Amino acid sequence: MAQALLPPPYSKNSPADNKKREVSFMNTSKIIRLGLIGAGRMGSFHGLTAARHIPGACLAAIADPTPGQAARLAAQLGVERVYTDPQQLLDDPEIDCVLIAAPARSHAELVISAARAGKSVFCEKPMAITLDEADRAIAAAADARVTLQVGFNRRFAKSFRTAHLDVVAGRIGTPQLLRSLTRDPALNNPANSPQWVIFLETLIHDFDTLRYLNPGAEVVEVFVMADALIAPEFKDKGFLDTAMVTLRFDNGALATAEANFQAVYGYDVRGEVFGSAGMLTMGAVNDSDLVRYLADGIQADTQRLDTDLLRDAYVAELNHFVECLRSGAKPLASGEDARAALAIARACIESFQQGRPVRLQGGRP
Amino acid sequence: MAQALLPPPYSKNSPADNKKREVSFMNTSKIIRLGLIGAGRMGSFHGLTAARHIPGACLAAIADPTPGQAARLAAQLGVERVYTDPQQLLDDPEIDCVLIAAPARSHAELVISAARAGKSVFCEKPMAITLDEADRAIAAAADARVTLQVGFNRRFAKSFRTAHLDVVAGRIGTPQLLRSLTRDPALNNPANSPQWVIFLETLIHDFDTLRYLNPGAEVVEVFVMADALIAPEFKDKGFLDTAMVTLRFDNGALATAEANFQAVYGYDVRGEVFGSAGMLTMGAVNDSDLVRYLADGIQADTQRLDTDLLRDAYVAELNHFVECLRSGAKPLASGEDARAALAIARACIESFQQGRPVRLQGGRP
Amino acid sequence: MAQALLPPPYSKNSPADNKKREVSFMNTSKIIRLGLIGAGRMGSFHGLTAARHIPGACLAAIADPTPGQAARLAAQLGVERVYTDPQQLLDDPEIDCVLIAAPARSHAELVISAARAGKSVFCEKPMAITLDEADRAIAAAADARVTLQVGFNRRFAKSFRTAHLDVVAGRIGTPQLLRSLTRDPALNNPANSPQWVIFLETLIHDFDTLRYLNPGAEVVEVFVMADALIAPEFKDKGFLDTAMVTLRFDNGALATAEANFQAVYGYDVRGEVFGSAGMLTMGAVNDSDLVRYLADGIQADTQRLDTDLLRDAYVAELNHFVECLRSGAKPLASGEDARAALAIARACIESFQQGRPVRLQGGRP
Amino acid sequence: MAQALLPPPYSKNSPADNKKREVSFMNTSKIIRLGLIGAGRMGSFHGLTAARHIPGACLAAIADPTPGQAARLAAQLGVERVYTDPQQLLDDPEIDCVLIAAPARSHAELVISAARAGKSVFCEKPMAITLDEADRAIAAAADARVTLQVGFNRRFAKSFRTAHLDVVAGRIGTPQLLRSLTRDPALNNPANSPQWVIFLETLIHDFDTLRYLNPGAEVVEVFVMADALIAPEFKDKGFLDTAMVTLRFDNGALATAEANFQAVYGYDVRGEVFGSAGMLTMGAVNDSDLVRYLADGIQADTQRLDTDLLRDAYVAELNHFVECLRSGAKPLASGEDARAALAIARACIESFQQGRPVRLQGGRP
Repeated sequence: MAQALLPPPYSKNSPADNKKREVSFMNTSKIIRLGLIGAGRMGSFHGLTAARHIPGACLAAIADPTPGQAARLAAQLGVERVYTDPQQLLDDPEIDCVLIAAPARSHAELVISAARAGKSVFCEKPMAITLDEADRAIAAAADARVTLQVGFNRRFAKSFRTAHLDVVAGRIGTPQLLRSLTRDPALNNPANSPQWVIFLETLIHDFDTLRYLNPGAEVVEVFVMADALIAPEFKDKGFLDTAMVTLRFDNGALATAEANFQAVYGYDVRGEVFGSAGMLTMGAVNDSDLVRYLADGIQADTQRLDTDLLRDAYVAELNHFVECLRSGAKPLASGEDARAALAIARACIESFQQGRPVRLQGGRP
Repeated sequence: MAQALLPPPYSKNSPADNKKREVSFMNTSKIIRLGLIGAGRMGSFHGLTAARHIPGACLAAIADPTPGQAARLAAQLGVERVYTDPQQLLDDPEIDCVLIAAPARSHAELVISAARAGKSVFCEKPMAITLDEADRAIAAAADARVTLQVGFNRRFAKSFRTAHLDVVAGRIGTPQLLRSLTRDPALNNPANSPQWVIFLETLIHDFDTLRYLNPGAEVVEVFVMADALIAPEFKDKGFLDTAMVTLRFDNGALATAEANFQAVYGYDVRGEVFGSAGMLTMGAVNDSDLVRYLADGIQADTQRLDTDLLRDAYVAELNHFVECLRSGAKPLASGEDARAALAIARACIESFQQGRPVRLQGGRP
Repeated sequence: MAQALLPPPYSKNSPADNKKREVSFMNTSKIIRLGLIGAGRMGSFHGLTAARHIPGACLAAIADPTPGQAARLAAQLGVERVYTDPQQLLDDPEIDCVLIAAPARSHAELVISAARAGKSVFCEKPMAITLDEADRAIAAAADARVTLQVGFNRRFAKSFRTAHLDVVAGRIGTPQLLRSLTRDPALNNPANSPQWVIFLETLIHDFDTLRYLNPGAEVVEVFVMADALIAPEFKDKGFLDTAMVTLRFDNGALATAEANFQAVYGYDVRGEVFGSAGMLTMGAVNDSDLVRYLADGIQADTQRLDTDLLRDAYVAELNHFVECLRSGAKPLASGEDARAALAIARACIESFQQGRPVRLQGGRP
Repeated sequence: MAQALLPPPYSKNSPADNKKREVSFMNTSKIIRLGLIGAGRMGSFHGLTAARHIPGACLAAIADPTPGQAARLAAQLGVERVYTDPQQLLDDPEIDCVLIAAPARSHAELVISAARAGKSVFCEKPMAITLDEADRAIAAAADARVTLQVGFNRRFAKSFRTAHLDVVAGRIGTPQLLRSLTRDPALNNPANSPQWVIFLETLIHDFDTLRYLNPGAEVVEVFVMADALIAPEFKDKGFLDTAMVTLRFDNGALATAEANFQAVYGYDVRGEVFGSAGMLTMGAVNDSDLVRYLADGIQADTQRLDTDLLRDAYVAELNHFVECLRSGAKPLASGEDARAALAIARACIESFQQGRPVRLQGGRP
């Protein structure tokens, strides 16, 4: 049976493209049946994307241990197979592969279980909390010869993706200075926050982005300044809400990664890479191309949520996962990428605890 | 059975929105089965959208008189019901409503036939070529009590939509000067072009946009300057590729609508409305938020195709059609809107032929 | 004695320019002594510019018939020679040339008198109110072999100047669609307004700008829609505050010129030229490159006054005048340019009065 | 005698400003006579500014020990008093105050000598190389009761100035994250470069800017990563061309300062301050508001030189100096500001040498 694809999103900008092109399609022999583990906010969003916007795939099962949570989402999305135990979903022979959107602490074990069950895995970031976990997850996927992709969605945002390709093509020469930042729109309850969440769950995106914008190079040193500036009352509980990380790569490039949990103007994700032959900047918070000119000046609306700002990237990463399943190609955001970003995050924790720069060698702090 | 919707795209920009919101869903009792008439470039694009991106709806049939065309698209999209005669599709009791993407000359008759068959209609613009046709189409839909929506996609582009709501809310006072323009990226073969295509098929978008940005007001006078500047060899065959239209509204506002068939930098759609309390501008041709800073200056890529530039609007207009079917609401782009824009286009043809301004009264030149 | 110049403002954007260049100077043998006629708002501004910011020139005399007005400005600027009768200034042998910033109705006679007195002239726009006046002013300057420059300041704004040079260099191919607009920030008292001020004093800028952006081509047809939308109570006195003009050039290009007298966000001057090989846009109302991201969205300040928005252009046009005096070159904004723009303005008045398009032939409506 | 001033450049953006305002003037009793010490690139630029663009002041003398250098500039600017020994200029009773644009190593001693001679001083940054020198210079100016201003020009760039005022007004709440960067367009000969030039002469701007954008707070900790990436062959001579500095302020705010000596797209100066109630961004490298839309995308020119990018700021800082001389007000960029920025730079040198974070206490590393 045939399936349809939207035109490729990363087309070159050449005059020849001006000719109106035909809508293109991909012939495929079989619908891929996805199972979702985790039906919270992010899981619901991935489930909706999987159910509705991925040609050649469908959402076929949902598992969540919270009573009623999987059933409610399944009803909304028209999914028939519902489980409370993720292992049941992994054992279901009707399911081809899984999307893991459970709490971060459980990711690595779920990846390993899925691999053992012969299921390919799309795992939300972070793939693991410790480097040992990460190594075991990668090994499990390799042993089972299943595909393993991690939810580093900025690799699939058009501007970041094009920037990466520009750097690879040498368009800005050798990277010398980089920047990546993440600012969440509103602080979630710090009391519920996992330990080191700013490094392991937020800045992990930026560490990956910096590697993506400096392809082939690896981080060899980090230094962290971090604090609880939004919610200082949680600082003695170990909660950090603001961080500035300096990084050195093995090709000499210097970088910063920056995070804050409360940007009143909305979700803010930006990148910059400066090289010997030019600079690329990515990221805009505008809600649309509407601009207002009023008596008190110029005004425009902003995007508020990650799922608005990066909506196309969320669709593109799942499409990529399905394409990799069909083609056997290794995903652009692999288990090894997850491990490399985690190693940086772990070095950051050490730098913060010791108040000094920390070197990474052979992928370990 | 339950169906899912993406979060509403036109959310207000208020601080309260910063709180991460839950993915929202719409409960519906029945999948709406769409039939597509016309499997050319635009029909294929609408078919793909209908088949893949409209929650609560599916593409269930395709009709196209060109041999093999409907079958080919149907195979690609996994659609089982294929017809060469559109009437067969209209007679198919399994089909709930139709998308008309056939050549413009046939639109009105297809709307009438669909209405008589009891099918609601989403009709690509222009809904009709003559005002009499338009009147008959509107009457047929009213008689049959079916929903009739026209493909004025800019009403569903986020920036144009928000601008319209801003004007309605009085944010820029009374509109005084407006502008709407359409520039296609590349000239199609003028030899195959229908008569007056620049007014009836291109500027019809801008006439509707101007009405949308000056809500409640109607055009009372138009004046046209137009020419064949890209392909002057076709001018004596009556082909125009460049036009500048001046319009006067009954609330005093003055406007221009501008079209050209060959913008080397890509598809260009922009709007501007200036009022007693401010100005709104819409439209950007950037491909993404990537900006390059190179030795010869600043550089960015552009979007090339209408289906790229307005992709979200194409999805939103079909979603709106399905929502109107369910709710019984009148579509935001109605048959009457189509007729009003057509009346302006017909007045433009008269102005061009006579070389003088033409007044419209009671919706007729 | 030696005089200093700022580096040329319209430098090419080539990598070689990155090398820090030396400050450049121009050797000149004599300070040029300027006389100012008219010490109102615009005269004061030009006087300040002449007194302070034009290397190789000084402001040496001021004339104004309003009692005390010349003396007050002279005291502020440290100018010793003060006259109430402009002819006295013209007869003063210490004065090399004159800046005319008197009311528009008197411009042409002052140009003629200055030329007869052997003084070169920088005249604020419009140079004349009627074509006969314009012809006589041009002839007087030619007969006296004096330099005559008109205050079309946008020709000296960096973005408009670079756009002109781009078009001349063929960078956007043949112009096909153009736009120029002027929006004043606040309505002056319409009761004091000269007749047809919107065409003769405001849009005259846009008519010149359109000619500047379509070099070598001349306007052959105009059509006007205009109204009193800001102050409708003055409409029956012949006062217009809003206008939309459509123009056709002899190279086929179509254009609009647009004016309004009350833009609440500040002075707004923009241009656009679209050609067979690309488009150029000019004009931004931002006060600086500061951008604010706040809880209710993105915000920036705007420029409010013509003398802020175009400050550098006002300096550059006077510098150009002084350079032309030294070099004998014909100014970039000549008497003939003033006459051509005036012919368009006169045709607009006729179009407005008759409600029909008006053709221009041989430089006359 | 009366002198004229341009309208204040930092006007508030209020609707009332739309009314065209009168050109304003300042009455002054005496022209201030400036003496310039140092006639190299920067000295020539300051000399030109002083000679031409500062109402109420004139350039009256130039001193430079390089044979012929002072005389050449004096001839170009029409200055009569020329010295090779700066002390002669300081002893000249005709000179009211001095502009120091000599090599950085000599700044502090020249400030001290000028103060002892009773001359007020505008000194290019850095005011001193060591903290002891800085303390002595500040004390000398205080003892002599002369005005002392330092060339931190970004404090006078409109966007940075408005940002500072916004922060003071609480418009973005408490600063939490800041960024300031300087990228020079082209590497000067590293062989001639003073030691630690990247910290003492380049980043000193950014250290001051960060203090300016976080008013009232002081830096308490710095950490440096720096390298020779453009000219690695000079690294063993102690030359650094790329640096990333992380800073912590005593109000908790975290910041980065970033420098690089070769930006192929031109001089690049930007700032960002993110606070609990919003964010401000400053800096744009565009040469003008011209934008090109061409077959290969969007294109714009960039500014190449500091004296182009910050031209208005250079004029404004000298105007401010002259205003402070008249009013007796303390300059916005004081000797104490210079010392505070120098203390950060010295701490950076220590951090680089020791490879660890360095704390500042009581204004010393």
